[in-house]
Amino acid sequence: MAALFRGSWNSLRRCSKHVHLSLDFSRSMASKTPVGFIGLGNMGTPMARNLLKNGYPVIATDNFPESCKELQDHGAQILDTPADVADKADRIITMLPSSPNVIEVYTGPNGILKRVKKGTLLIDSSTIDPSVSKEMAVAAEKMGAVFMDAPVSGGVGAASLAKLTFMVGGVEEEYNAAQELLTCMGANVVYCGQVGAGQAAKLCNNMLLAIGMIGTAETMNLGIRLGLDPKLLAQILNMSSGRCWSSDSYNPVPGVMEGVPSANNYQGGYGTTLMAKDLGLAQSTATNTRTSVPLGSLAHQIYRIMCARGYANKDFSSVFQFLREEEGQ
Amino acid sequence: MAALFRGSWNSLRRCSKHVHLSLDFSRSMASKTPVGFIGLGNMGTPMARNLLKNGYPVIATDNFPESCKELQDHGAQILDTPADVADKADRIITMLPSSPNVIEVYTGPNGILKRVKKGTLLIDSSTIDPSVSKEMAVAAEKMGAVFMDAPVSGGVGAASLAKLTFMVGGVEEEYNAAQELLTCMGANVVYCGQVGAGQAAKLCNNMLLAIGMIGTAETMNLGIRLGLDPKLLAQILNMSSGRCWSSDSYNPVPGVMEGVPSANNYQGGYGTTLMAKDLGLAQSTATNTRTSVPLGSLAHQIYRIMCARGYANKDFSSVFQFLREEEGQ
Amino acid sequence: MAALFRGSWNSLRRCSKHVHLSLDFSRSMASKTPVGFIGLGNMGTPMARNLLKNGYPVIATDNFPESCKELQDHGAQILDTPADVADKADRIITMLPSSPNVIEVYTGPNGILKRVKKGTLLIDSSTIDPSVSKEMAVAAEKMGAVFMDAPVSGGVGAASLAKLTFMVGGVEEEYNAAQELLTCMGANVVYCGQVGAGQAAKLCNNMLLAIGMIGTAETMNLGIRLGLDPKLLAQILNMSSGRCWSSDSYNPVPGVMEGVPSANNYQGGYGTTLMAKDLGLAQSTATNTRTSVPLGSLAHQIYRIMCARGYANKDFSSVFQFLREEEGQ
Amino acid sequence: MAALFRGSWNSLRRCSKHVHLSLDFSRSMASKTPVGFIGLGNMGTPMARNLLKNGYPVIATDNFPESCKELQDHGAQILDTPADVADKADRIITMLPSSPNVIEVYTGPNGILKRVKKGTLLIDSSTIDPSVSKEMAVAAEKMGAVFMDAPVSGGVGAASLAKLTFMVGGVEEEYNAAQELLTCMGANVVYCGQVGAGQAAKLCNNMLLAIGMIGTAETMNLGIRLGLDPKLLAQILNMSSGRCWSSDSYNPVPGVMEGVPSANNYQGGYGTTLMAKDLGLAQSTATNTRTSVPLGSLAHQIYRIMCARGYANKDFSSVFQFLREEEGQ
Repeated sequence: MAALFRGSWNSLRRCSKHVHLSLDFSRSMASKTPVGFIGLGNMGTPMARNLLKNGYPVIATDNFPESCKELQDHGAQILDTPADVADKADRIITMLPSSPNVIEVYTGPNGILKRVKKGTLLIDSSTIDPSVSKEMAVAAEKMGAVFMDAPVSGGVGAASLAKLTFMVGGVEEEYNAAQELLTCMGANVVYCGQVGAGQAAKLCNNMLLAIGMIGTAETMNLGIRLGLDPKLLAQILNMSSGRCWSSDSYNPVPGVMEGVPSANNYQGGYGTTLMAKDLGLAQSTATNTRTSVPLGSLAHQIYRIMCARGYANKDFSSVFQFLREEEGQ
Repeated sequence: MAALFRGSWNSLRRCSKHVHLSLDFSRSMASKTPVGFIGLGNMGTPMARNLLKNGYPVIATDNFPESCKELQDHGAQILDTPADVADKADRIITMLPSSPNVIEVYTGPNGILKRVKKGTLLIDSSTIDPSVSKEMAVAAEKMGAVFMDAPVSGGVGAASLAKLTFMVGGVEEEYNAAQELLTCMGANVVYCGQVGAGQAAKLCNNMLLAIGMIGTAETMNLGIRLGLDPKLLAQILNMSSGRCWSSDSYNPVPGVMEGVPSANNYQGGYGTTLMAKDLGLAQSTATNTRTSVPLGSLAHQIYRIMCARGYANKDFSSVFQFLREEEGQ
Repeated sequence: MAALFRGSWNSLRRCSKHVHLSLDFSRSMASKTPVGFIGLGNMGTPMARNLLKNGYPVIATDNFPESCKELQDHGAQILDTPADVADKADRIITMLPSSPNVIEVYTGPNGILKRVKKGTLLIDSSTIDPSVSKEMAVAAEKMGAVFMDAPVSGGVGAASLAKLTFMVGGVEEEYNAAQELLTCMGANVVYCGQVGAGQAAKLCNNMLLAIGMIGTAETMNLGIRLGLDPKLLAQILNMSSGRCWSSDSYNPVPGVMEGVPSANNYQGGYGTTLMAKDLGLAQSTATNTRTSVPLGSLAHQIYRIMCARGYANKDFSSVFQFLREEEGQ
Repeated sequence: MAALFRGSWNSLRRCSKHVHLSLDFSRSMASKTPVGFIGLGNMGTPMARNLLKNGYPVIATDNFPESCKELQDHGAQILDTPADVADKADRIITMLPSSPNVIEVYTGPNGILKRVKKGTLLIDSSTIDPSVSKEMAVAAEKMGAVFMDAPVSGGVGAASLAKLTFMVGGVEEEYNAAQELLTCMGANVVYCGQVGAGQAAKLCNNMLLAIGMIGTAETMNLGIRLGLDPKLLAQILNMSSGRCWSSDSYNPVPGVMEGVPSANNYQGGYGTTLMAKDLGLAQSTATNTRTSVPLGSLAHQIYRIMCARGYANKDFSSVFQFLREEEGQ
């Protein structure tokens, strides 16, 4: 979803002191001490390569030797464990699939915190439960290190092109240091507040996105059944109070827009499985904070059912197709 | 909700041959034969007055003598029944609370169709079930008359200022004749397709609006509980894929925007009762067309519960307040 | 669902003065004047045959000549239109697919009410919107006739075996007369109150049934995923507060019970399409009475989605299968 | 909810080898070595007292000195920390509010596992996430101890009267030893399977219970709005396929049954807050196992909203009142 923010972020840049886009070119190469990188998956590998491209020595590790080998070929030094990386680098980025992986990599027997140096900056770009981010921050602080959460918007393509958006939570004083690295890997960096705020912002956005997408799919389907032309209906909605990103920028009905997954049989884009995972995290945070999220909760269940009905790997806008099929067909 | 369309309709005007805004000043006053008007409620009265202001003689009726008296004072002729009006006018506008009223006024024992003249243009601006619009069109056609549905967006204020938006369904050849009258009462007129299409477009828009509003309320509430600043969260959403009209133009969280009902204790705006009514109609059309609308259906239930919990007369963005209250308070 | 009531109705018989099971054998054959029957579908045909078996002359009509021919072969007299039937019979039973059919058969140009005789007893066994039943009752009363609603529980098998359950609404004084005929076609007849009350009771029961069934499916699925043995889980639920008809008499999990559709690949039983139709009616009555039914509404949507995903003709307990499928399979 | 199981468990006893009710009076007093008890809240205190009544020496601890003092007055020995208790007792029961408390009491710096003796039997009667139970079992096993989960049905009254129901998960060989203690505190003990199965069974039951209760409330409300007598409607449902525990044993409509919370302004019974907590746990386990629970999820949200709208301390059947209130009142 890298394209989601294109253009529109300009205004954010103007209005918020916490958004910084340009690399600080005056920063001397002397600052380019090694950066640790843990988690070399589909996202982590291109992110780490962008650090290398920007002249930062990278010291990395991952459970998969193949991933390590690939990054080694691009110039990174590979070590055995997160603890080993922590021994050598005072800035470390982690990009992992889920909360348990983050807990293991930070606090496990070979985890970062076993050998982290005082003053080390730890940036976690995984999408996880904000409460886990807070736990990690507390654990890091006990060791004299600083932990920030910085989950991303944007997929593998955006990661390769350094066009990710980072939503950052953590101590404000450390934000500049984090930003130096993140701008090598992303086009936008937004400071969201204390530790966990980055995760919170991402989960909030994706929950509203899912609600808007399903709502758009239902509405377009209803309009079509009532005899409206889908393009005309989209046009009316987009100039009225029904307007949302899913209706005007990512319409789920084939034939309404070009260049979106609905125009390509719902290939590419943001997979239903990933959306279901994010909604599960949003649901957990809502449960933990005793917040009522009736539509968010139902959206979660719908994407969960879709995963079970063969839509796991299609773009999340395929909910239109899921709901639409004619009875009896 | 008159403001909803302000500005944004310019683009629609440019892109659709069916949107016409300017009065056709070349039309001679000779065309200003009497216009019938049935239904002089909060909306109908200012609409009829705008016809008078534009030089059209108005022949009106309503069940409430007070309403008739008021319009009479402004120059209208008052008759006893819809049938009487049909006897005198060959263009009639109806503005009624619900489907049964429309059925009565058109097909009842003293209804329009009892004495309608061949070729009469009947325009119904009530918000009702599209299938009732279609029934009325069939009944009108049997009498040689033409029926169009033209429900409005915009409240009493927009009606007074002739700033309503009309979504029109009906035979395309009669659209110009309808437009002549509707432009006296509204700022925007959109042709949506065959009879019932105006109702369909309105119900679709309002269903997606309700989903977006509840979704925004849930999301903002969750973000606040997670420690995010509401203004910053709105800013992030509005530049991201969570963006929708409810987040960027009508934010339901007090303090985030000015000039919206959430800034005024949810007074004014679009009442929860009206939204619940529209969602009930959308639900009925979905049931009749066997369309799955899980979020639309839940949105309907939530607004229904709110009506029962004291929110009937507050603006529909008060769902934020409804969901937010702290436990134990 | 004929089996649903087997046995358990004994207690109802004991406790309610309005439940009568035995034929009144003292009633003389003289009372066996002709009975009209309109609607010879899958249900109507065996019902009419049971009237014939009980010695009642039957005068029938239907749109499908084949259906008429079949009943004619069993001894019924066939006429052209409902009006013709009304001309010859002073007790008429109707069994039609939906509200519009009922309206047409009663109030259409060739409808019953065009030629109904004063004092005629009209019994409608269709499952329709209670408000339509009330309209028909008003229209019938204007003609001096009496209308009662008497929808059934039980499918084609129960209809053939005269094991249907009738839920009856209408003027209490006419209940005995209705009961005389209904007991020829059903095993149980329950008086529910004024006109529309039979429909209301049926819709209420089926809404709660659908909620209980989906809830049981979700719960059993969750328990199995958590490692519980499904038979043991059913046993625990059935002795605890989770107990419901769907868990103890119609368990949706294959292998837990015998003799239910889940033991037979969800063949037979009560089809998902029929359940979706009933839930649509329940939804409409809830909307019309402004009643909040959040779970009933979601149950409706789930059965609607199932109809669109290939489950239309499976028993409604197949919701277990619909929800269960493993992700990635 | 102690009464929920009254009577009906007899059949379970007959059919399952894992249910044992009678105390084994032949067991010699020699077996009455001290029992540890941690967590002396509203539930824990009467449970511990029942152990004392049965002749077991109790060694207890709690964060609240008052609670400790009270139990001390009844003959218990009080120690400072869970670790201290573990040092003295080889059978320990824990009864704590939530997952984090359990984690702290077992694995915290002064936790049981710091000084647990090999072979100690650890029984946790808290209602928590089954995955936490499994974690505790693994941690206990590492220290050579055995952990079982045994959450209860039944409130403070049932705890005082030793009428609780225990749902037990854990190694089958240890079940007899657990049962010896649990029968002192409860009327029913059910073996559900491996560790976590007790929690799973309880969460499953309560999720289905909540769905059935809300469904019953919606259905009764709809029927009443449609003009049905509530007692007659309950009677019809209870003999039909809509029957469930909430309709026939705990009806939420005032006036339908006696001796239930709805007959007493929803005082007593099982509080909405507790139901919301259980549903939150069920939701979490569903999310973690990627199980679709659309009605369970919506039930959770409804109880969550009720907590925020003033129903936190009313019995969970008050959902009838929550949904019912007339519009405009």
